[in-house]
Amino acid sequence: MTDIDIDAAAGLIKKADDILLLTHHNPDGDATGSVFALYYGLVSLGKRVRVISEKNSAVFDFIVDPAAFTEFKERFVISLDCGSAKLLGGDGVFEKYGGSVDLSIDHHGSGVRFAERSLVDPKASAASEIVYPLLNKLSVRIDKKIAECIYVGITTDTGCFRYSNTTSNTLRIAADLIDIGIDNGRINTALFETKSKAYAEFETMALAGMKFYLGGRCAVIYLSKDMFAKCGVDETETHAIPSLSRQIEGVLVGMTIKEKDNGNFRVSLRTNEPVDAAAICANFGGGGHKLAAACDVSGTLESVTSDLLKVVSRYIDGK
Amino acid sequence: MTDIDIDAAAGLIKKADDILLLTHHNPDGDATGSVFALYYGLVSLGKRVRVISEKNSAVFDFIVDPAAFTEFKERFVISLDCGSAKLLGGDGVFEKYGGSVDLSIDHHGSGVRFAERSLVDPKASAASEIVYPLLNKLSVRIDKKIAECIYVGITTDTGCFRYSNTTSNTLRIAADLIDIGIDNGRINTALFETKSKAYAEFETMALAGMKFYLGGRCAVIYLSKDMFAKCGVDETETHAIPSLSRQIEGVLVGMTIKEKDNGNFRVSLRTNEPVDAAAICANFGGGGHKLAAACDVSGTLESVTSDLLKVVSRYIDGK
Repeated sequence: MTDIDIDAAAGLIKKADDILLLTHHNPDGDATGSVFALYYGLVSLGKRVRVISEKNSAVFDFIVDPAAFTEFKERFVISLDCGSAKLLGGDGVFEKYGGSVDLSIDHHGSGVRFAERSLVDPKASAASEIVYPLLNKLSVRIDKKIAECIYVGITTDTGCFRYSNTTSNTLRIAADLIDIGIDNGRINTALFETKSKAYAEFETMALAGMKFYLGGRCAVIYLSKDMFAKCGVDETETHAIPSLSRQIEGVLVGMTIKEKDNGNFRVSLRTNEPVDAAAICANFGGGGHKLAAACDVSGTLESVTSDLLKVVSRYIDGK
Repeated sequence: MTDIDIDAAAGLIKKADDILLLTHHNPDGDATGSVFALYYGLVSLGKRVRVISEKNSAVFDFIVDPAAFTEFKERFVISLDCGSAKLLGGDGVFEKYGGSVDLSIDHHGSGVRFAERSLVDPKASAASEIVYPLLNKLSVRIDKKIAECIYVGITTDTGCFRYSNTTSNTLRIAADLIDIGIDNGRINTALFETKSKAYAEFETMALAGMKFYLGGRCAVIYLSKDMFAKCGVDETETHAIPSLSRQIEGVLVGMTIKEKDNGNFRVSLRTNEPVDAAAICANFGGGGHKLAAACDVSGTLESVTSDLLKVVSRYIDGK
């Protein structure tokens, strides 16, 4: 397992064919965007490429090629935007491919190396921000469709350029994509300014139940299975919820606790500077970025909340 | 009254001294940002500069120099981000300076010329986007403070790069500003990701009461005096509410009805293409822009809602 630079990664990909692209489970815009940017780019070079991914949110469907899911026997496996083998998405994918990924392209600083070769840039706001120069190295002509994929990836992971991971490089790439011809206003409306009625009801319900702890420095949103059932939303629609808790003045840690099966809870953390979300989640075997991370915790809602608050209080004490 | 280009504007400013800067009433981030970017830039060239402006929102205070409001007799008047003389902000400013502005720097396509010379670029997302190259023409060294002013202006007018007025030029300027050293993440958090607890409660209450009419094409939010009193927010904090109704999928007209005194209601309309909000509000003696307008309507809540829906239905029929 070796870390390589972008030239070496381009060299590997140039020689490869019959390529399988993988990404993390519960794929967001950067998972789907980075996979399909690379997919269209490699197809344009005449390579045979396929994708295994869990179903993405319908809002990203416009960058997905359904033909990408046609099976064939791959000879080279690339994972994108995936910080550890266990996070690989798709039925049995971890078991089948977890130990045989040839190249991982990722931007998670806290990632665990699992591929034969890794191209990791924690300063990149999104995996898509790494795919853009990689496609340039491969002499791929970035057309409007590829530009849309990269734009979706970058805007998803930066909250449309709001988050502190937005660098000058991020903005200059986005400027290039606009010059290529993407309709950034239309994409932004679809991704950031449109809610289904069901989701709007769900969001209102979630916010109405928000609770504050640790002197208002920790906000907790609880998402029960009942709420999902009652509003008729599915999990792919609710990725924006966790960041809502962080927006309240004085909150350093926003915590969203989602009920899963058998006393298991998925916890999404969003923090404000200087609190390290990934460090907190590492206490529970999870990980992510400094201001956005996640982990799985088991117990009752009360015990899980209390376990989390105990750890969170250590990280925000004196801050 | 002549339109001039950026070189001519730079030439005029180079020769000028004892400069007064004006902007529009109810100053937003672009008004304050463009004025103070030019203020700091001209001061750095050794010129004497002062500002007349109404009080800006406290969130923009970090770019304001209180010393800029010290009076002296000006010899050259520049207005920024102001589409007509009548919009000039400050007590008696229109009467005193409306006819004697030497240079108007603006980006409103629908603006009415009122200054001796006008530098107007309707393709610029913000007046601040025009001030940036102008300062470069003037050989001003753009320091961190000036960069913050321009960034605040651009992000305010583009919804932090979400709106369709965001061009590749907008993003490349913002990239330059980040390279100069602004803390874009921190500024974005303050401007776009921070809500007081009181406001968050108010918003949740407003959304919980949202009603749908005309087959889901019209969403109505009602803001009662009771809600303001209960949550302890004042009206200046609630400017973001009207646009929330427009975000729901299928909604063409989002209507926010705010209770005032004696059976009077202030109605804020936000529409999605192709419905014309200003045209609807004109039926009630109001006005505004195509996608955002307002009017005052009297009656009971029921009669006001019904009067509005009758007119709205005419405008969205068949759309």
